[in-house]
Amino acid sequence: MSAGFVYTRRVVFYETDLAGVVHFSNYFRYMEEAEHALWRAAGMRIDGVDLDVGWPRVSATFDYKRPLQYEDEIQIAVSVSAVTRRTIQYAFQITRGDTAIGVGSMTTACVARDGVAMRSIDVPADVVSKLRAAAGQAAE
Amino acid sequence: MSAGFVYTRRVVFYETDLAGVVHFSNYFRYMEEAEHALWRAAGMRIDGVDLDVGWPRVSATFDYKRPLQYEDEIQIAVSVSAVTRRTIQYAFQITRGDTAIGVGSMTTACVARDGVAMRSIDVPADVVSKLRAAAGQAAE
Amino acid sequence: MSAGFVYTRRVVFYETDLAGVVHFSNYFRYMEEAEHALWRAAGMRIDGVDLDVGWPRVSATFDYKRPLQYEDEIQIAVSVSAVTRRTIQYAFQITRGDTAIGVGSMTTACVARDGVAMRSIDVPADVVSKLRAAAGQAAE
Amino acid sequence: MSAGFVYTRRVVFYETDLAGVVHFSNYFRYMEEAEHALWRAAGMRIDGVDLDVGWPRVSATFDYKRPLQYEDEIQIAVSVSAVTRRTIQYAFQITRGDTAIGVGSMTTACVARDGVAMRSIDVPADVVSKLRAAAGQAAE
Repeated sequence: MSAGFVYTRRVVFYETDLAGVVHFSNYFRYMEEAEHALWRAAGMRIDGVDLDVGWPRVSATFDYKRPLQYEDEIQIAVSVSAVTRRTIQYAFQITRGDTAIGVGSMTTACVARDGVAMRSIDVPADVVSKLRAAAGQAAE
Repeated sequence: MSAGFVYTRRVVFYETDLAGVVHFSNYFRYMEEAEHALWRAAGMRIDGVDLDVGWPRVSATFDYKRPLQYEDEIQIAVSVSAVTRRTIQYAFQITRGDTAIGVGSMTTACVARDGVAMRSIDVPADVVSKLRAAAGQAAE
Repeated sequence: MSAGFVYTRRVVFYETDLAGVVHFSNYFRYMEEAEHALWRAAGMRIDGVDLDVGWPRVSATFDYKRPLQYEDEIQIAVSVSAVTRRTIQYAFQITRGDTAIGVGSMTTACVARDGVAMRSIDVPADVVSKLRAAAGQAAE
Repeated sequence: MSAGFVYTRRVVFYETDLAGVVHFSNYFRYMEEAEHALWRAAGMRIDGVDLDVGWPRVSATFDYKRPLQYEDEIQIAVSVSAVTRRTIQYAFQITRGDTAIGVGSMTTACVARDGVAMRSIDVPADVVSKLRAAAGQAAE
């Protein structure tokens, strides 16, 4: 994976737990923040304001290498790692300077919403090309 | 996977997001709550009060089938799915009555803590047998 | 304040922080959970499914007496402490058995929603009487 | 209150709830982030790494004027509003550009920790002067 788009973040107090390190669930929030920063960099919003679709998660994974602590400054690199007709998969690398913290992935489906009901639809053609461009990835 | 130990939970308001459903990161918190309920059922605490070791995450995954909404009553089934000398892997199934919501897994390492430093150690022999018993799994 | 309706809760791991105790922001979530349990006990839902209004917060306060730790079993007592034409104020007492943990309050406004816009409206007449009854409070 | 030290923040997705706005509990997290940014600006850390004391909350309040939404860029101004021998009170103003979002306050006690036990102690003399200086407030 190329470095991709890099989102920078500082660990805050309430993200730690009694073990003194960042709670493992927050890495999924860090990944989402990086994903949304990538969307902003691509000139888009993920919340359906400018594109009336939703992006529910299909799967999410993270492999933890080293813990994170309060006040750590971290980098979350995100890139588009796979695309199908109806899903986008992102790859993530979290680092703290030269230290590898862990790697993760998220797959999202594209859906049309009808109230609380959702119906899977094709990913709009230009979304992927805009995301790849913002992540510094070659078009496919 | 056998059903395992079942932890019951109601979705609360602050776990939802602007899409009107539970935020995907909270499923990892639900899995952890089920894991800790299993430890309680096995007569143990995971926070090192009665056993001076820690259990950091090595990896965590979740596959989402259907969304969850405010006030939903859900069941999180947990069982021990794999054990190595220094790790325990748990498998999870989340359901809402007869509806499959998704499946996940978490792998934890056993470590000795020295301040913020951690050193991988062998899983204490009786921890796994107690967890398996509490989950209704046969001894191996 | 009479004891009011009592909601019972166990402190979970991710609610603690590096100081080893429950993060102070989570007390506001505990209060909300108790408020919503009171609504359920009163046969109502707060999310507008059965009553097409919203209840944004006007103010919230908490006074902390003693810290809470992982696995603590706590009681959150809630009652209606004041009502105006367009707001409801709730009072809360958190205890752990005989130990006082703290007291808080929340004031919510009743609003009609028009997309993201909100317009203050009168509290529906029967909402307060149902909540008072569920909290074991005399009608006024 | 003078403007004080200003911390800037963007609302992220998981901070919203099904009402489409930021959950009210997160304003307390925003205030804490601003408090800790003030400590960094004053050359200090609040987690006891460079000063072996803790700062548990005594009370916290927030008055909500207008809701916040996903992607909003907000400013949280913090200043020291009152000091006693053993407590520091902070005042907060949250704005989104020219729009007032709300005001809050937090009072923290200074404590020495002995494991999970805490004992109230005097606020170290230079902590307040450093915080006031970082907030652009005159010494008292």
